Amino acid sequence: MFQFQCDYTEGAHPAILKRMVDTNFEQTAGYGEDIYCESAREKIRRLCGAPAADVHFLVGGTQANLTVISAVLRPHQGVIAAESGHINVHETGAVEATGHKVLALSSRDGKLTAKQVEGCISNHWEDENHEHMVQPGMVYISHSTENGTLYSRKELEALKEVCEKAGIPLFLDGARLGYGLASEASDLELSDIARLTDVFYIGGTKVGALFGEAVVITNPLLKKDFRYLIKQHGGMLAKGRLLGIQFDTLFTDELYFKISRHADDLALQLRQAFQEKGYRLWFDSYTNQQFPVLPDAHITKLREKYGFAFWEKIDETHSAVRFCTSWATSREAAEALITDIGRL
Amino acid sequence: MFQFQCDYTEGAHPAILKRMVDTNFEQTAGYGEDIYCESAREKIRRLCGAPAADVHFLVGGTQANLTVISAVLRPHQGVIAAESGHINVHETGAVEATGHKVLALSSRDGKLTAKQVEGCISNHWEDENHEHMVQPGMVYISHSTENGTLYSRKELEALKEVCEKAGIPLFLDGARLGYGLASEASDLELSDIARLTDVFYIGGTKVGALFGEAVVITNPLLKKDFRYLIKQHGGMLAKGRLLGIQFDTLFTDELYFKISRHADDLALQLRQAFQEKGYRLWFDSYTNQQFPVLPDAHITKLREKYGFAFWEKIDETHSAVRFCTSWATSREAAEALITDIGRL
Amino acid sequence: MFQFQCDYTEGAHPAILKRMVDTNFEQTAGYGEDIYCESAREKIRRLCGAPAADVHFLVGGTQANLTVISAVLRPHQGVIAAESGHINVHETGAVEATGHKVLALSSRDGKLTAKQVEGCISNHWEDENHEHMVQPGMVYISHSTENGTLYSRKELEALKEVCEKAGIPLFLDGARLGYGLASEASDLELSDIARLTDVFYIGGTKVGALFGEAVVITNPLLKKDFRYLIKQHGGMLAKGRLLGIQFDTLFTDELYFKISRHADDLALQLRQAFQEKGYRLWFDSYTNQQFPVLPDAHITKLREKYGFAFWEKIDETHSAVRFCTSWATSREAAEALITDIGRL
Amino acid sequence: MFQFQCDYTEGAHPAILKRMVDTNFEQTAGYGEDIYCESAREKIRRLCGAPAADVHFLVGGTQANLTVISAVLRPHQGVIAAESGHINVHETGAVEATGHKVLALSSRDGKLTAKQVEGCISNHWEDENHEHMVQPGMVYISHSTENGTLYSRKELEALKEVCEKAGIPLFLDGARLGYGLASEASDLELSDIARLTDVFYIGGTKVGALFGEAVVITNPLLKKDFRYLIKQHGGMLAKGRLLGIQFDTLFTDELYFKISRHADDLALQLRQAFQEKGYRLWFDSYTNQQFPVLPDAHITKLREKYGFAFWEKIDETHSAVRFCTSWATSREAAEALITDIGRL
Repeated sequence: MFQFQCDYTEGAHPAILKRMVDTNFEQTAGYGEDIYCESAREKIRRLCGAPAADVHFLVGGTQANLTVISAVLRPHQGVIAAESGHINVHETGAVEATGHKVLALSSRDGKLTAKQVEGCISNHWEDENHEHMVQPGMVYISHSTENGTLYSRKELEALKEVCEKAGIPLFLDGARLGYGLASEASDLELSDIARLTDVFYIGGTKVGALFGEAVVITNPLLKKDFRYLIKQHGGMLAKGRLLGIQFDTLFTDELYFKISRHADDLALQLRQAFQEKGYRLWFDSYTNQQFPVLPDAHITKLREKYGFAFWEKIDETHSAVRFCTSWATSREAAEALITDIGRL
Repeated sequence: MFQFQCDYTEGAHPAILKRMVDTNFEQTAGYGEDIYCESAREKIRRLCGAPAADVHFLVGGTQANLTVISAVLRPHQGVIAAESGHINVHETGAVEATGHKVLALSSRDGKLTAKQVEGCISNHWEDENHEHMVQPGMVYISHSTENGTLYSRKELEALKEVCEKAGIPLFLDGARLGYGLASEASDLELSDIARLTDVFYIGGTKVGALFGEAVVITNPLLKKDFRYLIKQHGGMLAKGRLLGIQFDTLFTDELYFKISRHADDLALQLRQAFQEKGYRLWFDSYTNQQFPVLPDAHITKLREKYGFAFWEKIDETHSAVRFCTSWATSREAAEALITDIGRL
Repeated sequence: MFQFQCDYTEGAHPAILKRMVDTNFEQTAGYGEDIYCESAREKIRRLCGAPAADVHFLVGGTQANLTVISAVLRPHQGVIAAESGHINVHETGAVEATGHKVLALSSRDGKLTAKQVEGCISNHWEDENHEHMVQPGMVYISHSTENGTLYSRKELEALKEVCEKAGIPLFLDGARLGYGLASEASDLELSDIARLTDVFYIGGTKVGALFGEAVVITNPLLKKDFRYLIKQHGGMLAKGRLLGIQFDTLFTDELYFKISRHADDLALQLRQAFQEKGYRLWFDSYTNQQFPVLPDAHITKLREKYGFAFWEKIDETHSAVRFCTSWATSREAAEALITDIGRL
Repeated sequence: MFQFQCDYTEGAHPAILKRMVDTNFEQTAGYGEDIYCESAREKIRRLCGAPAADVHFLVGGTQANLTVISAVLRPHQGVIAAESGHINVHETGAVEATGHKVLALSSRDGKLTAKQVEGCISNHWEDENHEHMVQPGMVYISHSTENGTLYSRKELEALKEVCEKAGIPLFLDGARLGYGLASEASDLELSDIARLTDVFYIGGTKVGALFGEAVVITNPLLKKDFRYLIKQHGGMLAKGRLLGIQFDTLFTDELYFKISRHADDLALQLRQAFQEKGYRLWFDSYTNQQFPVLPDAHITKLREKYGFAFWEKIDETHSAVRFCTSWATSREAAEALITDIGRL
């Protein structure tokens, strides 16, 4: 059985585990104030070209999202997101639990356009009863999105411009940032992400770490007292060095980018295999998630040997499914799958 | 430099790391639904003598506290706790952030008495304007407490009785449960804890794990939909097996109890050393935290070689300090410290 | 200038003010425990055919909505509502501020269908990751809706059936309940509302009172400790008798229904005038709100003498607008408007 | 039976009711944007000597407190208050329900001292783990306090100085501000209150209005988007003019101060009567609440003819009780009580 179910079925890249073992009996300060966290922060700041950025390590993605959003918004403000945004559908109302509405905009591919966001904001302010409505206070995007799609540099610049004009921070959920940046279809560097957002995070959980996300705050107005918020939401790891060690390792010798590229490469081979076979792709993804539309009979057939996720019923006899590769996916698994796709 | 600063300065017990390395490339289901979590759950249920208990693994203590409390209380209810309770002082208002007041009762040693709790509850209901006041909806205790003190079986039974009479669940924060149960002064077993509370957790972070707490819910009324709450608060680890592996290891061959006993033994040797030297103990602890009252000059002296925490100014020339041992404290470190205490 | 802007431009029905003046120097208990509240409660229970119902008086509609919803839901649950529902668009995120997501379903006319609700609920439970999503915990409808439309008895019965099957309470926002019940198109009595919902409220603010809504809880499971919730959200009026006096007056000699019928009658005359003139109605309302689609030039013309609300741009030259009548609208005003419509 | 139970047993000052009746059929804009609110705002600004202040009318005290506090604090901040502060004991955890801890300081008389507040703030910042604790973000005082006591100008200046030094706003709950300002023991004017606080409110509910409190925000940093917060918490009255009319009337011809003085005068006569009889006063109040310590037998005796509140058991045979006068208390009632005190 080969797993393409999701990008977090294995543990961590072996280099991370090795480092944990090597440092296990060192005695360090707690709560992220150790030398490993500091070293990782420094590497991230350098790669981001953002020497003044604040970098915080949190345990997971939902926690990163809810902590960032609730730290930034005032109580009457909401966060604009695509309908399919992780915060809107798959976090059990974590944002609402901190008191804020997700202002969901429709989206075919998981992306928001600058025009949509601008419209949502101006609609608010043009309404004479705007005090009766939730005020847009932040824009949330993910990159790559939940559908594997990517923002181009131009699209991101346009979003940033709209946000700046409105005085609203732009927050990028980078749970799969590695897979986004490493894609052959991407024209964005990590430093672009840092420059074109106010706060974002670099996903570890889905990209080689045991767990953990690195929140990077570049907008000075959003930095104040952030550590209080981490603690309040239960996200301040006592043995914070565990996160420092992981990110320090990931950002040594470009490991983060290398393993992301590996996953994307395999995913694009799957993409090609599906396309050559004549299958439609439900989303046009050039990253580690691929969403072919398959006849239900073929889905049943593939399930005999492969794990993958059901996505959406398309018609009476077809469904979209999701195949994920990751840093841990073996070439062997991908090749077996490609062969079997060919045989369908 | 020997660290007695806290009980989370090192990584994890080597057996845990070894197991993580050994299983690293296995592919498992996420979110705590893997075989390691299931195995750990089963072991915990057996040790608790509670075959029907629900067991959930959460990342840390603050998270466990806020998730349990907000899962149980209705919006107008608060949680009774000792003034010195972790939820009242050291969690940045995590409980309040979920909408609930901590009803803090004064306590010399960190423990609540059944009588105090009973008084607090009856005061509420006797007030004719009780609807204008927060309704007591849960009792929170820690064992061992933040001051290293312990509940006796009789005290815990009395608390349980008061809670049952009032129809209010009793929640035990076991961040240091191992050190509590392993103490020579304890007359409680894990199965007593399970029997005499409605929900409690077994601390991993401070007792040999990298991180993680095992929440055990024995009261059937408190079980419903708990996993939603974990997810909502960002506490559902994608690679949940990391927690399963840790607790499964800790509860294999009594590792959890052995390493706890080790810490307590060393702590009691420190206790004896301080007492033999004539120092007062600020709290009467028989667990891994010791709180001697030392002349400030001696504190300065000891700081040259040892890390430990300032606790409280006692008078012009004395302060209470805290020495923590842990599963990782070496006999060598303890002996060095004992020798130096003798020389003060 | 005649106002058709909304249904709360005047004070209160004179009978209410007279009663306030007459009782002004009486000394009564506070917080809704006076004889006027008790009398009003009794009348409402009788009219509802619900002798065991709990009746609470709250200051306003947003408060009634947020208090009821937050009293009923557990933290991981959300409330299903039409996209156009008041709680979803015009309460500044009041429901989210109590921690809950509004699960908004699309709706052309402001109503929810039983089928929609059933689909939303079953979608949740069929998803294998349902714990990652907000759980539907309540259904919210308004009657008449924000668009003036009405549920038929059959529709309401179908909704109730779906809710009961799912074990989810049905909550009816009756801010304009009087106008709904008094409509010639309605086949529902107050007792039907009481029987077919679990909790609802009878709007006073828009139907003759200075302010105030009467929340009626018929489902015994939702009654517990509701007064705590009212107080916590700042909705427990110190001089609660002010609400008691108002509702007692409204439910004496059928005043509530008489003044509602008056408003509906005038509104239907407006409806007829618009239709005779060949204007389309944006929503098919038989209650006190009418939504004709008018040429923009005619809107400008009418604005010279009449106040009314812009609703929505329909095309380059037409907009939907809203004319409201109320208990206080004079026949003279309605006739003048009808004449001027005829002249357009 | 004469009522001294509380200061909200009657309706409103007749001048208010008359004005409501007179204006009843006027058609005004909703939500506090009518001419009566504007006129009342202007009068309040003038009396406060604060021409740039924002003035908002809210329905009640709990609502005013929770709205102001949640508008000002960030999520990790709490509000310092006296243990006996209304927000700490009698609002069913309304502040906590918005996510914030009340940092309660002990107080004999209901007042906070500048030194206490300074200590609380500096304790926070001196703790090296301050991020694990709730950050003081606001200071809440009431004037007169829940115990009838008053701040002197010097005391208020000292509090303001401490707050300014710490960069923390000072909020004054003026539910009984009229009775405070009118007291012969007060050396403060309304303009002092405005100058020495950042935000405060002028109580109407307990001082002659049917209901309503006027929130005055003088600190420009606290003004932004406040109306959103009012709406979100259900405090934006549709027929806002009801509040405007009431405060406009109260601040016409000094009515607010005259009726407050009336209540204080009668209360001081009661005070004198109790003292002449040799009874101790539990709090040293020069305002409309008096707290004599009486033998329980005398309490029973007085209860035959008078309503008043039990406060606290003092010893086996004595209790403190509370007698309230108000704008509505008649001289006749006070004289009867004084006579009966003399006869005890």
